[in-house]
Amino acid sequence: MASPVELLSRTNPVFSAYAFYAAILVLKMMAMSVLTARQRFRKKVFANPEDTPAAKGKVKFDDPDVERIRRGHLNDLENIPIFLLIALLYTLTDPSHLLAINLFRAFTVARILHTFVYTVVVIPQPSRALSWAVGYIITGYMAVQVVLSFL
Amino acid sequence: MASPVELLSRTNPVFSAYAFYAAILVLKMMAMSVLTARQRFRKKVFANPEDTPAAKGKVKFDDPDVERIRRGHLNDLENIPIFLLIALLYTLTDPSHLLAINLFRAFTVARILHTFVYTVVVIPQPSRALSWAVGYIITGYMAVQVVLSFL
Amino acid sequence: MASPVELLSRTNPVFSAYAFYAAILVLKMMAMSVLTARQRFRKKVFANPEDTPAAKGKVKFDDPDVERIRRGHLNDLENIPIFLLIALLYTLTDPSHLLAINLFRAFTVARILHTFVYTVVVIPQPSRALSWAVGYIITGYMAVQVVLSFL
Repeated sequence: MASPVELLSRTNPVFSAYAFYAAILVLKMMAMSVLTARQRFRKKVFANPEDTPAAKGKVKFDDPDVERIRRGHLNDLENIPIFLLIALLYTLTDPSHLLAINLFRAFTVARILHTFVYTVVVIPQPSRALSWAVGYIITGYMAVQVVLSFL
Repeated sequence: MASPVELLSRTNPVFSAYAFYAAILVLKMMAMSVLTARQRFRKKVFANPEDTPAAKGKVKFDDPDVERIRRGHLNDLENIPIFLLIALLYTLTDPSHLLAINLFRAFTVARILHTFVYTVVVIPQPSRALSWAVGYIITGYMAVQVVLSFL
Repeated sequence: MASPVELLSRTNPVFSAYAFYAAILVLKMMAMSVLTARQRFRKKVFANPEDTPAAKGKVKFDDPDVERIRRGHLNDLENIPIFLLIALLYTLTDPSHLLAINLFRAFTVARILHTFVYTVVVIPQPSRALSWAVGYIITGYMAVQVVLSFL
């Protein structure tokens, strides 16, 4: 097996792909804050009294459009940080380059689709369930590989 | 002190234990999504109108059984990702092997117990408070060690 | 470019600063749990029936003081873990030491200020918006640098 210093360097194409897709996923999660803020100003609905003067809005916790984006953001928090950690440990198991890079890519595409069908244009189920499941299965596969490798 | 390349390799038993327990914790967090989905289908209670046709359910945000699991999941998000990061940095401080490995093990057991007494079989306090506190104290101890080591 | 083993060791001042500020941010996030618990006992307001006997409290989900701290904690979860990951990958791009260390420092100070003006002493906007934006822009800058570096 390659040494950890090789596995965690940019000469390892799996690690380079990890770093690239991790940064894309961070930017995707950051976009949720902008989507939430945009809906808050459009609907004039805020979570704190000190926020309301700006747009002459009011405090409200059950606006369906704002809460939908917040659920999408929370779903990201439940799924993406654990992927980012386990994908890094999976890289240290020296996996097949082709498989690992395509798993990173598939996870990233699936999470972008999940955000799109949940919060941008609501597309009937099972579109959201399937995009969520792709990410979930990839994370689970990597976690099991890490458990077996470091047992 | 050992070099970072030795500390982050599988020849370091502390790092191997870290990777193993981190993967177990990731799998444990993933189980929360299944527990939530199971309750949603059992109680026919969903968070989105497009989810309701599947089980002839309705949109509802205050079902006590569903919300209890969601609180357990949120508690995981508040406590486990920061542990996973700080435990990795703590590994780089070259700690006592025996202490470090047992802290990783104790954290993992405590968080599994926390989930169990919170969301599977509700056991009276202070069972949940104590299982939470074990994880909290371990995370805090490691964070202080990292601060002192990298000051 | 320096080798990854040098970039991830304590001889690299950027990595040492990363580890130090990461541990400070973990301790800051841990403080949110204490702030929440303190308000719950002060207002006798809890999220679970099994928690109420301790302080002769009641189950309530809309206490403004408790919910404000919980929003602050959730905002941390949305912003700090992605910073901790991207700042580590940014360290691997071998950035200017002066710039990187000051970005870590500025992010840490901004997030502490964010918590203070949101949950300790509520200071009128745009204090919270600005402290949030400093952290957001730093995270976004690092994510773009990582994308460009590992493209």
